[in-house]
Amino acid sequence: MTARNKKLINQPENILSEMLEGFAAAYHDIVKLDENGFIVRRTPKAEGKVGLVIGNGSGHEPAMIGLVGPGLFDVNVAGEIFTAPGPDRIVQGVKAADRGAGVLVCVSHHAGDLMNAEMALELCEAEGIENVEMVVLYDDISSAPKGRESERRGTAGLFFVWKMLGAFAETSGDLAACKAMAEKIRDNTRSLALALTPGSSPISGEVMFELPDDEIEVGMGVHGEMGTGRSKLISADATIDLMMPLILEDLPFQSGDEVLVLINNSGSLTLMEMFILYRRVAQQLEAAGVTAYKSWLGPYATTQEMSGFALSLCKVDDELKALWDAPANGAYLKQ
Amino acid sequence: MTARNKKLINQPENILSEMLEGFAAAYHDIVKLDENGFIVRRTPKAEGKVGLVIGNGSGHEPAMIGLVGPGLFDVNVAGEIFTAPGPDRIVQGVKAADRGAGVLVCVSHHAGDLMNAEMALELCEAEGIENVEMVVLYDDISSAPKGRESERRGTAGLFFVWKMLGAFAETSGDLAACKAMAEKIRDNTRSLALALTPGSSPISGEVMFELPDDEIEVGMGVHGEMGTGRSKLISADATIDLMMPLILEDLPFQSGDEVLVLINNSGSLTLMEMFILYRRVAQQLEAAGVTAYKSWLGPYATTQEMSGFALSLCKVDDELKALWDAPANGAYLKQ
Repeated sequence: MTARNKKLINQPENILSEMLEGFAAAYHDIVKLDENGFIVRRTPKAEGKVGLVIGNGSGHEPAMIGLVGPGLFDVNVAGEIFTAPGPDRIVQGVKAADRGAGVLVCVSHHAGDLMNAEMALELCEAEGIENVEMVVLYDDISSAPKGRESERRGTAGLFFVWKMLGAFAETSGDLAACKAMAEKIRDNTRSLALALTPGSSPISGEVMFELPDDEIEVGMGVHGEMGTGRSKLISADATIDLMMPLILEDLPFQSGDEVLVLINNSGSLTLMEMFILYRRVAQQLEAAGVTAYKSWLGPYATTQEMSGFALSLCKVDDELKALWDAPANGAYLKQ
Repeated sequence: MTARNKKLINQPENILSEMLEGFAAAYHDIVKLDENGFIVRRTPKAEGKVGLVIGNGSGHEPAMIGLVGPGLFDVNVAGEIFTAPGPDRIVQGVKAADRGAGVLVCVSHHAGDLMNAEMALELCEAEGIENVEMVVLYDDISSAPKGRESERRGTAGLFFVWKMLGAFAETSGDLAACKAMAEKIRDNTRSLALALTPGSSPISGEVMFELPDDEIEVGMGVHGEMGTGRSKLISADATIDLMMPLILEDLPFQSGDEVLVLINNSGSLTLMEMFILYRRVAQQLEAAGVTAYKSWLGPYATTQEMSGFALSLCKVDDELKALWDAPANGAYLKQ
């Protein structure tokens, strides 16, 4: 046993059920674990709200269980570790979220999540469940080139969609408008990740990849998917100087733009390091004439104990700023 | 260079200043970095509020910079990494927090912090600054036996004091009452920590202690101070079964009591593990007839990338529950 797989669990096969039970007990004022094993709001909205559902593999906590609550998601269908939930589960989730105004199934773009969600929508149609739509979300610029955005992976920058779509759906009542809002936020968002050390599987204890002690990898996915290249470990400022131009050029973010900034902690990076990184982000934004409206630095979508981070920017207008500032009460996102 | 000291910083000697600059830039809507280099509220309260000041060594982020804001602290005097700020700095902090209703200097009990705060209070007296009090806070049951509580270290359970004293001081206007409230919360709080892997010094890169791959240490301090003993790595449930009776017996927490629960992440423990730990905490509380009013699981006082946690309980009455539920807007504590 190496330090890498030194984890406080019981039986690996019980991780999901025990985690959900503990989470629901800890935050009983916000959520509950329903009869299907889904995390749902303690107090569901009244009829007429567009339901927001997301399924995801577990192991990325607080995503997505920590983002269920007022101003955020209605229902989270958590799959096994790093495994998308099956179509039957997503159909159950749609039913649990239905308040008579339609349901939007949000999909973080990975092959398994997309396939299962597509099958779930076919099952809904076959069962006569109407007014269900799907939106596929992606943000990672390292996973496909510009012009092929829809092939990109969903990573931590989807946080912006969760927050602002959640606020929008709280009052919209219109499924098509919710889907269009999710797409607007997605299309304004770009992310790039960097890893210093790998995470490990909580089931097998195996590390996700090997990385020499003096190297970093740029462009990792949230399950340790290959990035775009390795580099020697460089300073915090040099790291941001490497990443920022790639993100700015991709949208592109331009002088006069206002943005939200997220530095997502993959696991074991310290906040101390994240603040030092942000300092350079702020300098680079200023140099580019881009204004940071608000910023969040913390662990929102993790990859176990991986040390690393993702830097995400989302271009905002007055509509999005108001959605950002709207109240939210998830266990791990409060506004 | 080992994986342990792979950190994204620039020059080690600039960690503190760059971290504070980045933090203040990221959360410019909540705080600002003042002319002394202190993190203070962006919008100070009007005259008549008791000022709350805390000094601390850095390297434990988000403590304490992330707990400055409405409903929390007024001024944080951050020292160098793991080094308490000197008395002159604390006197400056007192002046920065003074709104004409007195200032309470909060001290997390460690030799250096206490000595510097005591000297600061003498300097205040010598300078004719009146109405300044100090409260010494401690919670770690492993650092001195029952009956010698005032010799114990301050650790993550002080979180309860920060939150509820902050709420109380928002409206109290009475320095003696604020000090008494801090003491009441402290005297209702007990904590015990456990480490799986050490953290490292961000300055030297050296690990704080050595721990075999199959062992855990119970009762660590927040700088890696020695605990009460080592044990083989055991399951999550067995870990809580080991720790919980020690905490319950110490106050003691008894059948019929209501408590707040904190599981503080030392650094690289996953939320997945924390939820599994909490499940057993909830079972143990139920067996003891103790009700968890609210719980928080997350990183509030960290020890760099140490993997481990502290479990803290605070006995609450109606007064404390209302203070817990009162609004707070720190960068890393929102209610």
